[in-house]
Amino acid sequence: MQTPINLHQAAAALPELWSPQIICPVNDHLLKVARVEGEFVWHAHEGEDELFIVLDGQLSIEMRDRTVHIKPGECYLVPRGVEHRPVSPGGCRLALLEPATTLHTGGVVSDRTRSVAEQWGDARRET
Amino acid sequence: MQTPINLHQAAAALPELWSPQIICPVNDHLLKVARVEGEFVWHAHEGEDELFIVLDGQLSIEMRDRTVHIKPGECYLVPRGVEHRPVSPGGCRLALLEPATTLHTGGVVSDRTRSVAEQWGDARRET
Repeated sequence: MQTPINLHQAAAALPELWSPQIICPVNDHLLKVARVEGEFVWHAHEGEDELFIVLDGQLSIEMRDRTVHIKPGECYLVPRGVEHRPVSPGGCRLALLEPATTLHTGGVVSDRTRSVAEQWGDARRET
Repeated sequence: MQTPINLHQAAAALPELWSPQIICPVNDHLLKVARVEGEFVWHAHEGEDELFIVLDGQLSIEMRDRTVHIKPGECYLVPRGVEHRPVSPGGCRLALLEPATTLHTGGVVSDRTRSVAEQWGDARRET
């Protein structure tokens, strides 16, 4: 990374919903941004915590026993193994931090699953 | 973490400058917030990348060959081994992500060095 990257602008520029783009690796983790709207798939990451930071809009994380609502500037950690579904009726932009090995749809492979190679997008050329 | 945590508010509430507080562990990493003003010490983290996200104000990271200026909403990665000095004449609040093993003053131990136990602050009781 030659110069700082604006996370809000990077997320806003994403052409596709629910398709995270990698901003940079941080040791064995990847910082990503995503633009989402509507409902994602229920999934869990066995053995891997996942951090959400909401940049704009509101994100709800449905879990089997409760739902949390995350506003801009707030973060929430989904602990490893917890089944969850991100939902954002009004749409939102967010930053994600998860291990480089994490598949963003967890153990569920759907048409929304993106490989790590796909998530690099243009970021690799910029770093 | 029972409910989302507002990173801006958590950083603003810190009583002491240059004294990071842990928000939550993310696998083998720790998400922290800090409130800083003035100049920190020159240091490097051997073998550990460190991610800065500026929440409010402006942070400059001086490195031996250049300086970068990070504005609110922007992130910057200081790669492992790179000697750096965070500087913020006007003060700023920031989020940090680094391995749980990272000492925030790197290989330099000064009166600003805080142990990981000290960085937990009130966060452990809240999670």
